[in-house]
Amino acid sequence: MERPTVECLKEHVDCYDDFTEEEKVQVAESSYILKIDKDETVLTSASPCFGVMFIIKGRLRTFLISDDGREVDLFYVDSGEVSVLTASCLIQTITFEVHVMAEEQTEVILIPTSTFGKIQHENIKIENFVLKAATERFSDVMYTMQQMLFLPVQQRVAIFLHDECVRTGSNEIQTTHKQIAQSLGTAREVVTRILRIMQEKHIIGVSRGSVIILDRKELKREAQ
Amino acid sequence: MERPTVECLKEHVDCYDDFTEEEKVQVAESSYILKIDKDETVLTSASPCFGVMFIIKGRLRTFLISDDGREVDLFYVDSGEVSVLTASCLIQTITFEVHVMAEEQTEVILIPTSTFGKIQHENIKIENFVLKAATERFSDVMYTMQQMLFLPVQQRVAIFLHDECVRTGSNEIQTTHKQIAQSLGTAREVVTRILRIMQEKHIIGVSRGSVIILDRKELKREAQ
Repeated sequence: MERPTVECLKEHVDCYDDFTEEEKVQVAESSYILKIDKDETVLTSASPCFGVMFIIKGRLRTFLISDDGREVDLFYVDSGEVSVLTASCLIQTITFEVHVMAEEQTEVILIPTSTFGKIQHENIKIENFVLKAATERFSDVMYTMQQMLFLPVQQRVAIFLHDECVRTGSNEIQTTHKQIAQSLGTAREVVTRILRIMQEKHIIGVSRGSVIILDRKELKREAQ
Repeated sequence: MERPTVECLKEHVDCYDDFTEEEKVQVAESSYILKIDKDETVLTSASPCFGVMFIIKGRLRTFLISDDGREVDLFYVDSGEVSVLTASCLIQTITFEVHVMAEEQTEVILIPTSTFGKIQHENIKIENFVLKAATERFSDVMYTMQQMLFLPVQQRVAIFLHDECVRTGSNEIQTTHKQIAQSLGTAREVVTRILRIMQEKHIIGVSRGSVIILDRKELKREAQ
């Protein structure tokens, strides 16, 4: 088990300065660096409260699963951000459960629930840090929900592709129809149909496991 | 403008004990009792940050509106609860806007954003109170979203009717097809069709402006 150095904690744990000296020692002694493979599950309903995760690199996908196995993405937690819903039992007012999976090879500093819970109980600044991080995700979920409720699915596919384009800085997006469908909470067949129309308009090219953006300007227009 | 008495503040403002003596004076001098008529709008995108509202009696409906005017209910804030999204500008991490309307004749203690913001800035316990109230609403929204995404609309209509039955303690629910449709984010025609089926099964009776529950046991079964 690899422990993070103090420098590493200082760099990645946003609330580090709010810990007391004693708490800093507790964190240093109980936190560890967790390496998560692409597509590895971090959190399921069976293990709903792991700890607070500060993302060193990579990306965590937070999503819901229906009883019949349908997945709907809520938000991503990226490098430099913190995942608090992986420690949702620390927040009494959070009564729902989510699933978390690594979207790519990911490395996090994990502060276990036991340590973080004890500190948060004694240090209101740390409790506020966790609550603020949770309300930030509330905003993310509201954004997702508004898109889902009010935007036509064609536009949502265009937004998804454009956002990925901007995020990765590449015109080639590594994704499958199934992944896009999951992310948007729709059926794969729907995504396939929309991608085919965009292909006919020469906005994108589709190959196995990737979508290539041919006309970024037109894609942006479709996303608006 | 009617100011609440100290007794009234003590009774309804859950975080009252966390105010300092000076803050208690500020609250007493700036808060007022706001009476809101049924169906009156409390919050729109034009006036998005009114103040923190402690509900003395009545019920506030918090909802989204799409560009084409479609409404989707997020949650209700009931008597004895607090509405913090009517002061969402106090929470930097909240970046979305909602609409709020009185579902029935409602009376609240309103602490204006200017007073509450100043206090929250200086008193971390009060900030903590607001953040906790916001994450509670996060849980409500997640519940609504999961229902919306994963449950068949027949079941959601049954849940809606059963919940109203329990909440009001009455078998006669004052509501229209349009209101049920808004609450569930679906079309009025869909609700009408489902109510007709439930009526044929003798679970409910429908009259102008109300739904009468005839078979509560069967309604509960349909909601599960």
